[in-house]
Amino acid sequence: MKIAILPGDGIGTEIVAEAVKVLNVLDLPFETETALVGGAAYAAHGHPLPESTLALAKAADAVLFGAVGDWKYDTLERSLRPEQAILGLRKHLGLFANLRPALCYEELTHASSLKPELVAGLDILIIRELTGDIYFGQPRGRRTAVDGHFPGAEEAFDTMRYSRPEIERIAHVAFQAARKRRGKVTSVDKANVLETFQFWRDVVTEVHAQYPDVELDHMYVDNAAMQLVKAPKKLDVVVTGNMFGDILSDEAAMLTGSIGMLPSASLDRNNKGLYEPSHGSAPDIAGQGIANPLATILSAAMMLRYSLQQPAAAERIESAVKAVLAAGLRTGDIWSEGTRRVGTREMGDAVVAAI
Amino acid sequence: MKIAILPGDGIGTEIVAEAVKVLNVLDLPFETETALVGGAAYAAHGHPLPESTLALAKAADAVLFGAVGDWKYDTLERSLRPEQAILGLRKHLGLFANLRPALCYEELTHASSLKPELVAGLDILIIRELTGDIYFGQPRGRRTAVDGHFPGAEEAFDTMRYSRPEIERIAHVAFQAARKRRGKVTSVDKANVLETFQFWRDVVTEVHAQYPDVELDHMYVDNAAMQLVKAPKKLDVVVTGNMFGDILSDEAAMLTGSIGMLPSASLDRNNKGLYEPSHGSAPDIAGQGIANPLATILSAAMMLRYSLQQPAAAERIESAVKAVLAAGLRTGDIWSEGTRRVGTREMGDAVVAAI
Ligand SMILES: CC(C)[C@H](C(=O)O)[C@@H](O)C(=O)O
Ligand SMILES: CC(C)[C@H](C(=O)O)[C@@H](O)C(=O)O
Repeated sequence: MKIAILPGDGIGTEIVAEAVKVLNVLDLPFETETALVGGAAYAAHGHPLPESTLALAKAADAVLFGAVGDWKYDTLERSLRPEQAILGLRKHLGLFANLRPALCYEELTHASSLKPELVAGLDILIIRELTGDIYFGQPRGRRTAVDGHFPGAEEAFDTMRYSRPEIERIAHVAFQAARKRRGKVTSVDKANVLETFQFWRDVVTEVHAQYPDVELDHMYVDNAAMQLVKAPKKLDVVVTGNMFGDILSDEAAMLTGSIGMLPSASLDRNNKGLYEPSHGSAPDIAGQGIANPLATILSAAMMLRYSLQQPAAAERIESAVKAVLAAGLRTGDIWSEGTRRVGTREMGDAVVAAI
Repeated sequence: MKIAILPGDGIGTEIVAEAVKVLNVLDLPFETETALVGGAAYAAHGHPLPESTLALAKAADAVLFGAVGDWKYDTLERSLRPEQAILGLRKHLGLFANLRPALCYEELTHASSLKPELVAGLDILIIRELTGDIYFGQPRGRRTAVDGHFPGAEEAFDTMRYSRPEIERIAHVAFQAARKRRGKVTSVDKANVLETFQFWRDVVTEVHAQYPDVELDHMYVDNAAMQLVKAPKKLDVVVTGNMFGDILSDEAAMLTGSIGMLPSASLDRNNKGLYEPSHGSAPDIAGQGIANPLATILSAAMMLRYSLQQPAAAERIESAVKAVLAAGLRTGDIWSEGTRRVGTREMGDAVVAAI
């Protein structure tokens, strides 16, 4: 088994180093190869996703990704900016299924913006379609408007679109995930306004016929944004498109109050995947050794479960993380009175020790 | 001055009746005319926005709107569903500027999902563009995909678009509103992915040059969804497109915990407007006399301020609402131990008495 390691920018290097340390202690038959991505790759090779990095990612069985982005690249033209690397990897690797658990750890309930009773025990799985929708739809660009409110004016436009097989495959992922959880799928759309999402609702409903044991409900995206705040624990699996999923998965992550703890998986149709923390590259604290490596360590656990068929090893990591939290170790982002503040490396070492 | 009264469906009739009662006690020179809209109009005339209703709304100086929608119309084809009325009114009346305050009343802080210290004193104004974006962009529909992941498959699509003058005019509304508030505008976009919103960012930045006294920052929509949960009080005026505004304004409203208190205004370029509560038609409690009429009463106050040039009268209503809250009166949605539970009519009467 081969794992491509793409640390990226900002805190990426530090947090990925800890995850690799944890993987290495498990004594599993894999090899790793590291490559530059994002701003770091642009700086070295003039492109955020160099051919060699893409080739490595394609050849590997799984990709462990840190984070990309730094203010110093903000002025580059869009096609050269760090985030193009992540969009390019999703597209070229066909990573259509993004799994984003929003989990509230008992010890960290207090860190949430929400009242403890609303988030204690929270366990939502957001499944975001990741290679379609308005992210990749063509045509897009700038032009002169020929109709609308101001014909003749300069305008910019994008195309939202979903095809039947794209919706079907992500719906299957959601229903299958729900079977292993609490058996409930909430499909989020905007069927009252958008053709794309009326179609989404129709196709999800059709696929549901194959899963009579799973409960399905449909929710408009504006209502979903409200229900996440009002009663998040009523949700189990949430499935939605790329754009709505971008917004709702971040909202849900922030609800837990501990986004530094949340992993993610982006899978292709053969369960090959890219694994990355839900948080960003945090350039403001990069290089200080204070970033929380747990989201990346837990992403490595997801990698073992989904792409490398090592569920027992995944559980060992997850249990070790719980043990470390129970022992009171905290990086700054999740620290509270009465717990012990540790740095990135010390946190990684503690997980290794707990394994 | 002429006010078109469109109560709509569900609790619409009950809550609008209270707002009209409050308006009448102010002894101002206006006349009202009432018409059916939404499901009620469909049931009577076969269309959610009959010609006669639209003509009345066009002829009036302002529209006071209740809410539309009921489960019994869910199976109608989309063009006949109640929400088409609100989309049609926005479009035909040119109501491009939607102002949605998210305000947390001191007495109701506890009703929020968020910890009190995060929402106490919250006062955000979300300005949502309301006649453009993917809501109205053409072309849209279903077709056979010619490219993308599954050429030849059935697909549905929509067009997101914004023209320069559309962005300019909503940006002006935002900067001018900020001048009367805390002087800060946060423009929300997805410039890292969408052509439409890179253009949005460019044009908002250009318009900002005319408002050097106002602070402007740009935020990606996923980050905005997080910041609303994490630190909502850092925001002042938030300006964004129709689709993102739909999601974020509802999220922000729910954060306050008292969506039954939140009014909204939708203005055209001459400050003619449609005023409606931020909440929906709540068919589950319709006809029971328990709905909270305050959002609608406060919408009437916004109407007096923005469309009817009666700021003093608007303030009388707003002060009366505060007095009623201070006196401990609460409808069921905002009730808590130690306060007095009242019905829709009793709440309206109390506001009238306080005026
Ligand atoms: C960086 C950006 C292009 C990306 C997205 O919008 O998908 C990010 O927000 C994410 O969710 O991974
Ligand atoms: C009913 C629906 C079409 C509408 C919208 O999406 O604009 C509603 O959600 C709103 O925000 O007023």
